[in-house]
Amino acid sequence: MKKLINGTETLLQESLTGFAAAHADIVTLGDERKFVRRRDLKRGKVGLISGGGSGHEPLHAGFVGLGMLDAACPGQVFTSPTPDQMLAAAEAAETGGGILFIVKNYEGDVMNFAMAAEMANGKIATVITDDDVAVETSTYSTGRRGVAGTLIVERMVGAAAEKGADLEALQELGQRVNAQTRSMGVALTSCTVPAAGKPTFQIGEDEMEMGVGIHGEPGRRRVKLAAADAIADEMMGAILGDLKLKSGSEALLLVNGFGGTPAMELYLMYNSAKRILDGKGIKVARSLVGSYVTSLEMAGCSLTVSALDSELTALWDSPVHTAALRWGI
Amino acid sequence: MKKLINGTETLLQESLTGFAAAHADIVTLGDERKFVRRRDLKRGKVGLISGGGSGHEPLHAGFVGLGMLDAACPGQVFTSPTPDQMLAAAEAAETGGGILFIVKNYEGDVMNFAMAAEMANGKIATVITDDDVAVETSTYSTGRRGVAGTLIVERMVGAAAEKGADLEALQELGQRVNAQTRSMGVALTSCTVPAAGKPTFQIGEDEMEMGVGIHGEPGRRRVKLAAADAIADEMMGAILGDLKLKSGSEALLLVNGFGGTPAMELYLMYNSAKRILDGKGIKVARSLVGSYVTSLEMAGCSLTVSALDSELTALWDSPVHTAALRWGI
Repeated sequence: MKKLINGTETLLQESLTGFAAAHADIVTLGDERKFVRRRDLKRGKVGLISGGGSGHEPLHAGFVGLGMLDAACPGQVFTSPTPDQMLAAAEAAETGGGILFIVKNYEGDVMNFAMAAEMANGKIATVITDDDVAVETSTYSTGRRGVAGTLIVERMVGAAAEKGADLEALQELGQRVNAQTRSMGVALTSCTVPAAGKPTFQIGEDEMEMGVGIHGEPGRRRVKLAAADAIADEMMGAILGDLKLKSGSEALLLVNGFGGTPAMELYLMYNSAKRILDGKGIKVARSLVGSYVTSLEMAGCSLTVSALDSELTALWDSPVHTAALRWGI
Repeated sequence: MKKLINGTETLLQESLTGFAAAHADIVTLGDERKFVRRRDLKRGKVGLISGGGSGHEPLHAGFVGLGMLDAACPGQVFTSPTPDQMLAAAEAAETGGGILFIVKNYEGDVMNFAMAAEMANGKIATVITDDDVAVETSTYSTGRRGVAGTLIVERMVGAAAEKGADLEALQELGQRVNAQTRSMGVALTSCTVPAAGKPTFQIGEDEMEMGVGIHGEPGRRRVKLAAADAIADEMMGAILGDLKLKSGSEALLLVNGFGGTPAMELYLMYNSAKRILDGKGIKVARSLVGSYVTSLEMAGCSLTVSALDSELTALWDSPVHTAALRWGI
C-alpha cells in the first residue's frame, strides 16, 4: 500500500486538521473532530448537515460553507459516522430553524442518522439520496445507493436555505432534486482502504467494473475495457432510460472523477456524454467536471444527469463558498 | 494501459472540445484547437499566454480567464506546443498592451516560445519559471524545472494585468514571484503517457522518487517509502534551505496533487508542511490544496512555498474566474 500517511490510526484526524487549517476562513472543527462546521452560521436558517464515511473527499466537508452545508460528519474511511457525531453537529448547527439531514442511502448512514434524529430535541427532517441507477440493492444498501448526485442535492437545498426556505420546503426540495437526478459509475482500478492495506477488489488489466459503487462495491457487470464513447453510451443509456427527460428539457451534467482519473479523461468523458444529450435534444444548461465524490485513488468516473428548471438553475447559480465549490462570492 | 479514451490520436482534441464546452462561459477554442482563449478579452490589457505539454491539467487551460491567463497553448501529452500555436495565440490575445509569455523551464517550451516571440510582430516579453529545487538540470531542462509554482506566477501577474500594469512591470513582477517561489515533488507511482502505452518509469512497491519532475523525470534519489512527516521534512528542508524566509515572514503554501492522490492525503501533507512552517515562525497567510499541476494519474504530490507581502497577498485575493481557480466573482 502506497499512501502519503503517518499511520492508519491518525490519518483521518491529521487530514481533518489540515483541511480545517487550509480553509479556516470557511470552516471550524467541532470538539474531538466530530464534525466540520461552517464558521459563520446564519441565525434562524435551517441547519443542513450531511456526513458519511471518509475517503470520498471533497464530499462532504468540502461542501460546508455559505450556500451549501452547515456541518459534515466524517466517519472513518468508508465507515459511517456515529449518531453521537451527528447529534453534536445538529446541536452546533441549530440556530432556530431546525435541522435537515442529507443522507446517502447506505444502511449504516441511514440507521445512524435516524438514531441521531430520534435522540435530538430539536426539529429534524431527513432527505435520503439514492441517485445511483446501477443496482437496486448492493453490499451496503437496500435500494439504490446515494452517490455523486448528493452534491447537487446539497447545493440546491443549501442555496434555498440561504434564501430563507423553511425545513419542510427544504425537505421537499431535496426529495424533488434527488428524484430527478441519476448517476452511474465505472471503475478501471480498485482503491485501497488504508486500514485494510490491500485493494478492495481485484480487477484484470483489461477489465472494468460497470456500475461500480463509491466504496468499490460491485456494479452491474465486469467487462472488457471499452472505448470512452461506448462506456458513456452504456452509462447514459442507463441514466436516461430511468430519468426519461423530454427533448427540449434542460439538465445539469456532472462528470465526476473517482480520485485517480486525470482531468483530461474527465473532459473527454464530458465530451462523450454531452454529445449523447445533444443528440436527444436535451440541453446541458450547467456543467460540473472534476473529482468531487471520490473513492480514494480509484481510477474511473461517474456521470450524473439532473433535470433543471428555471428555479433550480437559479439556485445552482446563487453564491456558494465552500472549499470545493465556489462562485458568486 | 487503462484510460478513459477513444484512441491516443484523438484524446487531446476530444478532451479540449469537452473542456471548452464545459467552460463555455469562460473560454473559447482557437482555430484547429491551437489554443484555449479567454472568451472576453479586455481591450488594452497585456495579453498573458502560457502553454506546455498536456497531461498537467488544469495547468494551463484551466487557468485561462479573468485575473489569470488570456490564452494557453496545449501541446500533445508531455510535448511542447509548437511556435505556430503560440504565434496564433499571441495574435488572438493582442489587444494593444503587448503579450507576456509565461514559460516553464523546459528546453522544448523555452525554444518554441522564443521562436514565436521572434516571429511575432507585436511587443512580446517572457517570464521563465524554474521553481523546482529538486535538481539543477534534468532530462528536459537546463537549469531548474518550472513546476507548480508556475500557477502562482500566473495568478499574481494575471491579477496585476487586470489592474492595468504594463508589459515591463508584469515581466518584472513575474520574475520576482518566480524568484521567491520554491517547489519540490515526490512520486509514489509512475504515470503512463497514452501514446507510449506503458509506465514512464518503474518503481518498487515500497519505493518513492524524491524530487520527481512533473513528467516522471528522475529527482534526487530513489528511496524507501517513508512516513508523510518525514517526506514533508525532506521536501520543506530543500525548499526552505533555498528560499531562506525569515521568522515573521508570510508565505503561500501550495500542496499540489499529481493526479492520483486522494484529497485526504493532500490535506494530511498540508498539515505536515504547515507544522514545519509554523515551527519556523513563518506564517501561512494563504493556502491552496488540490491537484492543480498534475502528471496524468501519478500518485504523489509537490509542496510549494511562495513568499508573500501585502502587495502580493492583495493580488492573490483579487477576483479570479477560471475553470480551476475562482473567487471574488
